[in-house]
Amino acid sequence: MEKLQHVLEAQQFTRTFLETELFPLTKKMEQVARERNDHSLSGKIVYHLFYEPSTRTRISFETATTILGGIALSTENASAFSSAIKGETVEDTVRVINGYHHNAIIIRHKEEGAAARAAVVSKIPIINAGDGTGQHPTQALLDVYTIYEHFQTLDGIRVAMVGDLAHGRTVNSLAYLMAKFRGIHIDFVSPTLFRVQQDIKDYLERHPVSYNETTNLGEVLKDIDVLYMTRAQTERFRQGERFDNHHGGFKMDLVMLNRMQPNSIVMHPLPRNDELPPELDNDPRVVCFRQAQNGLYVRMALLKMLLS
Amino acid sequence: MEKLQHVLEAQQFTRTFLETELFPLTKKMEQVARERNDHSLSGKIVYHLFYEPSTRTRISFETATTILGGIALSTENASAFSSAIKGETVEDTVRVINGYHHNAIIIRHKEEGAAARAAVVSKIPIINAGDGTGQHPTQALLDVYTIYEHFQTLDGIRVAMVGDLAHGRTVNSLAYLMAKFRGIHIDFVSPTLFRVQQDIKDYLERHPVSYNETTNLGEVLKDIDVLYMTRAQTERFRQGERFDNHHGGFKMDLVMLNRMQPNSIVMHPLPRNDELPPELDNDPRVVCFRQAQNGLYVRMALLKMLLS
Amino acid sequence: MEKLQHVLEAQQFTRTFLETELFPLTKKMEQVARERNDHSLSGKIVYHLFYEPSTRTRISFETATTILGGIALSTENASAFSSAIKGETVEDTVRVINGYHHNAIIIRHKEEGAAARAAVVSKIPIINAGDGTGQHPTQALLDVYTIYEHFQTLDGIRVAMVGDLAHGRTVNSLAYLMAKFRGIHIDFVSPTLFRVQQDIKDYLERHPVSYNETTNLGEVLKDIDVLYMTRAQTERFRQGERFDNHHGGFKMDLVMLNRMQPNSIVMHPLPRNDELPPELDNDPRVVCFRQAQNGLYVRMALLKMLLS
Repeated sequence: MEKLQHVLEAQQFTRTFLETELFPLTKKMEQVARERNDHSLSGKIVYHLFYEPSTRTRISFETATTILGGIALSTENASAFSSAIKGETVEDTVRVINGYHHNAIIIRHKEEGAAARAAVVSKIPIINAGDGTGQHPTQALLDVYTIYEHFQTLDGIRVAMVGDLAHGRTVNSLAYLMAKFRGIHIDFVSPTLFRVQQDIKDYLERHPVSYNETTNLGEVLKDIDVLYMTRAQTERFRQGERFDNHHGGFKMDLVMLNRMQPNSIVMHPLPRNDELPPELDNDPRVVCFRQAQNGLYVRMALLKMLLS
Repeated sequence: MEKLQHVLEAQQFTRTFLETELFPLTKKMEQVARERNDHSLSGKIVYHLFYEPSTRTRISFETATTILGGIALSTENASAFSSAIKGETVEDTVRVINGYHHNAIIIRHKEEGAAARAAVVSKIPIINAGDGTGQHPTQALLDVYTIYEHFQTLDGIRVAMVGDLAHGRTVNSLAYLMAKFRGIHIDFVSPTLFRVQQDIKDYLERHPVSYNETTNLGEVLKDIDVLYMTRAQTERFRQGERFDNHHGGFKMDLVMLNRMQPNSIVMHPLPRNDELPPELDNDPRVVCFRQAQNGLYVRMALLKMLLS
Repeated sequence: MEKLQHVLEAQQFTRTFLETELFPLTKKMEQVARERNDHSLSGKIVYHLFYEPSTRTRISFETATTILGGIALSTENASAFSSAIKGETVEDTVRVINGYHHNAIIIRHKEEGAAARAAVVSKIPIINAGDGTGQHPTQALLDVYTIYEHFQTLDGIRVAMVGDLAHGRTVNSLAYLMAKFRGIHIDFVSPTLFRVQQDIKDYLERHPVSYNETTNLGEVLKDIDVLYMTRAQTERFRQGERFDNHHGGFKMDLVMLNRMQPNSIVMHPLPRNDELPPELDNDPRVVCFRQAQNGLYVRMALLKMLLS
């Protein structure tokens, strides 16, 4: 297959690539992280060019770089490249970094499409670590990998996505990526005012994915394989918007967990509010920290593919 | 003895541990820092998880990690882990970092007890680098080590702690730690409104430490072994509070320095205001920069103990 | 010659040093950056002590340190060393860092002269990475090196410096440094209100440099070897000041570029506004990204000289 050049959006990956290349390598990376026996990035410099702070994503990428023997250089303040003039273009900054002999750029930006614009002028690989309301492909990949790791397949999986579906970049990316598999059913569970965006539904209708919308989590709980909880993204709410959680209808508790199938899993992209209480963490079906850990392994795998 | 697991508060250390383990290893670390011949932390990742900027403490720990061959990853902006939801718990963040195969976490937090809460959920060592008005154990250790290094003992030492004793976390920790030794006498020298807190005095009364309170530094100057100067922590003052330095009574000068014993030392945790003027730095009794340097060695020793 | 101890200002370097030591080593560093075969800084710690964010300069130095095998530790928030007291002196901070066994300090400060004050108390090399309206010597060196690289000499070069010459630290440093060579002519091209500062002109008059002031770029375009474009430093303008670009008279375009000599070059210190449009980048005479890259090589060369 064609060599991977950049990681810009979740949709760029084929099912075959995921199943035969990325996921097997991701699995191997777990062992590498434990044994520190792969130094594929030795002597390589990875620049973490963050235009907004995202400590969580940055530390995951820096750790991936570091475990593989690479050197992580970083800024969380990349807008300072252009503070003086309110707007050096991403392109100019990327050209400068290319001239510094770095080996890859992890970019986080406020504007949708920034990573793609960076890639146009970059001779070294660009990884999109989230651009505005656009893509966050490594998050989608770690989510899909977590499901795949548990069920050894993605075909025929029934997922409930729960909570504030109107503002969830994560939910969108995951839906796009799952549409590459067969026999997927998605239950969108949200308050009426926080329903999933129409373009996602349009997309699913063009693909072999069935979906359903409901405000009642209890209705689907016993039938699903994956419960994907999300928090209310209050920071993206418009004035006056308020997430009404229906007397707890969009929060998990022990009673609800006990109604789920023994082989199901409960996911959450973190950080969490009270929709997934820590008291449930001891249940082996709650895999939100495994998910975060898989994020490290997926990022290691991508860096290794891009740089070695 | 039991292996050291976390460094959470100054009181956790026994006198025996300090004298037979920590201090001898700290001494060795000076040579290691010069010769760079100990790579005990090779391949280890130490995460500096700072919820508030403390450049001074961070660079000391990062240097310690680095000299021992480890990899320092850092944030000074750890509240960004939870910015979106105004409060991911420290516990969740620490669980995620544990999943990233890091080898230790240095934590700095605004809230007292944060480090202890982190330790409860962490499988890797936690070092408290200051939690709010609570503990800053490595500062207390470097202070005690500096005294020990000079006098080769802590028993029978007479210390004057001078300045704003009401707001000084440093003073409290040092008093707690010195109470583990014999024959200690402490002179608390401060304006009446900035006297040492009652709980410290209660603590000393329950231990074999004698103490005395005065507003007159001159009164004790010729009798003390250690003069521990502190600055007015104006940033912690309540509205209207004002540090009245009694016409210079809480400031050192050459005349006062000359009244001190030849074998005494003058300490200061830095940063300093005018209470310890740079003109005195050339006097070998002024050891404030040696103190800072000892901070590096103590941190190296602790990291080595925890990680090898 | 005397060993290089600190890099504090552009004027400290002799012509001989530049031509026989710095520039040849800078040239070599390009190959080192490509082949990563020089680890002169192995085991050395370089501290990037930035009192104000300057991501652009910081990443260039961090990359230089890293490519040569050194360890880059950094803060962009060095004023936090003294936040509590609004003013730990630079001297105290530098004394502490000296005690930490670092091997060099790259300092960026708001105040002119801060780097020189740091050098007075430092036993390890200080490199000035910009102090206020004062010096930014590595920027001047990379500019001069870029001209030298292209023409293989600096003697007899005619340079037009264009734009906001009143606020340009870069322009001042470059003029000071060029005055060390023979037969230099400088055209200062700016709006009347943004003319070059009088002290620069006084300096040039004391040196064998001829200069000319004009508001008309077209007048000099066909005669110059180097066109040095700068942006309007609006962030340094006084209230009400406004850069009047004379109907585009201080902006480059294709028509103007075509009037320049085939062997001339167009420089810009970046970041740029619209005075040098990206459409011109494909012309080989536009070397602004080469300039940035030369910044890396110059900094590598200086670090190597100072530390090995």
